[in-house]
Amino acid sequence: MTQAELVEGVRAAAPRALARALSIVERGGAEARDLLKAVRPGGAPPHVVGLTGPPGAGKSSLADELGLELARREGPLAVLAVDPSSPFSGGAILGDRLRMSRLASAPGCFVRSMATRGALGGLTAASADAVDLFAAAGFGRVMVETVGVGQDEVDVMHLADTVVLTLPPGLGDEVQAAKAGIMEIGHIFAVTKADLPGADEVEAHVRGMLELQPAGGWSPPVVQVAALEGRGIGRLADLVVEHRSYLAGDGRREGARRERAERRLRSAVEDLAWRTLTRNHAELVREAVDRIAAGDEDLYSAAESLLGRVAGEPR
Amino acid sequence: MTQAELVEGVRAAAPRALARALSIVERGGAEARDLLKAVRPGGAPPHVVGLTGPPGAGKSSLADELGLELARREGPLAVLAVDPSSPFSGGAILGDRLRMSRLASAPGCFVRSMATRGALGGLTAASADAVDLFAAAGFGRVMVETVGVGQDEVDVMHLADTVVLTLPPGLGDEVQAAKAGIMEIGHIFAVTKADLPGADEVEAHVRGMLELQPAGGWSPPVVQVAALEGRGIGRLADLVVEHRSYLAGDGRREGARRERAERRLRSAVEDLAWRTLTRNHAELVREAVDRIAAGDEDLYSAAESLLGRVAGEPR
Repeated sequence: MTQAELVEGVRAAAPRALARALSIVERGGAEARDLLKAVRPGGAPPHVVGLTGPPGAGKSSLADELGLELARREGPLAVLAVDPSSPFSGGAILGDRLRMSRLASAPGCFVRSMATRGALGGLTAASADAVDLFAAAGFGRVMVETVGVGQDEVDVMHLADTVVLTLPPGLGDEVQAAKAGIMEIGHIFAVTKADLPGADEVEAHVRGMLELQPAGGWSPPVVQVAALEGRGIGRLADLVVEHRSYLAGDGRREGARRERAERRLRSAVEDLAWRTLTRNHAELVREAVDRIAAGDEDLYSAAESLLGRVAGEPR
Repeated sequence: MTQAELVEGVRAAAPRALARALSIVERGGAEARDLLKAVRPGGAPPHVVGLTGPPGAGKSSLADELGLELARREGPLAVLAVDPSSPFSGGAILGDRLRMSRLASAPGCFVRSMATRGALGGLTAASADAVDLFAAAGFGRVMVETVGVGQDEVDVMHLADTVVLTLPPGLGDEVQAAKAGIMEIGHIFAVTKADLPGADEVEAHVRGMLELQPAGGWSPPVVQVAALEGRGIGRLADLVVEHRSYLAGDGRREGARRERAERRLRSAVEDLAWRTLTRNHAELVREAVDRIAAGDEDLYSAAESLLGRVAGEPR
């Protein structure tokens, strides 16, 4: 497949081309950048729905049900399951796809998993690039699902226009407390596994925490769902659509999109600076590392003198 | 206080100068870089002990006890409590210092907390810079404590020569499973709260997971501790000292130090590239962000053309 054929295939949402393009983007590097320059999406960007929460919240089952409901109402949907939780082991990739098997086989829908790419921030960049590919393929809706409650997940959720934060019953107070930071990125709160005892307590806890937040234009609603019985799924889909309408008003979405573009530009510039340096001046970098490790040069002087090298060079 | 006085004070380990220097490093930017260039540590770098684990593992109490024991054996110790878990709310900073109150008031010892600094990776860089300040102040031992089990904590633990991973009894299987990734960075495993039921099961679980790891030169030992009763603390201190001796052999420590220097250099170059760009070409950056957000330019073409600007310019 030539690059032109690949680009053509992505634009036509051909599953094989899309799968191959996503693998290229997952690997990153010059090939990924060239591809992304070539497929540059036009037209209206997709509505990106984020789904996150602690391990065991039942996100994959919920993604499956919510995705099917949204697809039924509004047409095909692409899902990206991002796994930043296993920097070393690679993560439970296949598992995600299995748990979203119904959505994966729905007509026109597409489910893809993605795990750690290289260093710091690499996965966030690859996830954003993947959403661009889905946009180029004409998907009007993309769902990004990720597990966990740390900074990585917050970064991934910055891709989303609408963030659904899932919270299961039965987690201890300590885990709840650790989640205080992530509460601020949720637009909709879904108490999952509502068929288990404790769901009402979690809902009350979330409502209590939400009251502590500064009042804004959008008051995050809380909904109980039980994915396996389909309970609350219709209501959750209503809320997702409602939030999208809310964003459409007053240029709110444009502001968010600008923030996202700036964040991605920063990450792209940073990544490119280091790549260019290590490719064109590998020996100089190695010597600087030796001097820093030996205590013969300070980190910031070395960084300044190296950065001076990367202008006007081939990348 | 002039910069020269500040540098003098840091080198003399004067508490007020050290506290002020740490605040500068926590804020980051040009002032921090200038300070770090000026205090550049000479002599033998400190042995850095990392302490991490899930919320509720009792890390602060353990840090207090282990720190006191190490200080008793080998002299004053500095502790850095890093809190990457609350990207928005700021985190429970004061709490950490209170829980390490005994160590904080031990003669010659120093305890400092640090929370999120700016964007991605900022806290890791600031933590590494703080360790450099402790080194310049002549501390032979530094302990870095952080809460959590995600990529952020793994990044912070890359600062440490010896990583103590703490695991409390009573966490569910799901949380244990999520920790699989972080297992690989532990040199010593401490099962905390050994006075509670379930400690033996956690120890067995950890030993089982360790058997799955590739055999290497150092076999991570597992020890049960109960910080409040002082149980296991002496043994844990023995293991920390043993691991340091192990590192001293065969240039193992030099290899790790080189890796750390390279990681820090990358982060410093990346940060500097973006800072330089936004300071010297704010208008160009703003226009590029607008074009990307509007879909009129692709991310990577914009990054390439901007990066060409940052060579040979004042930073």
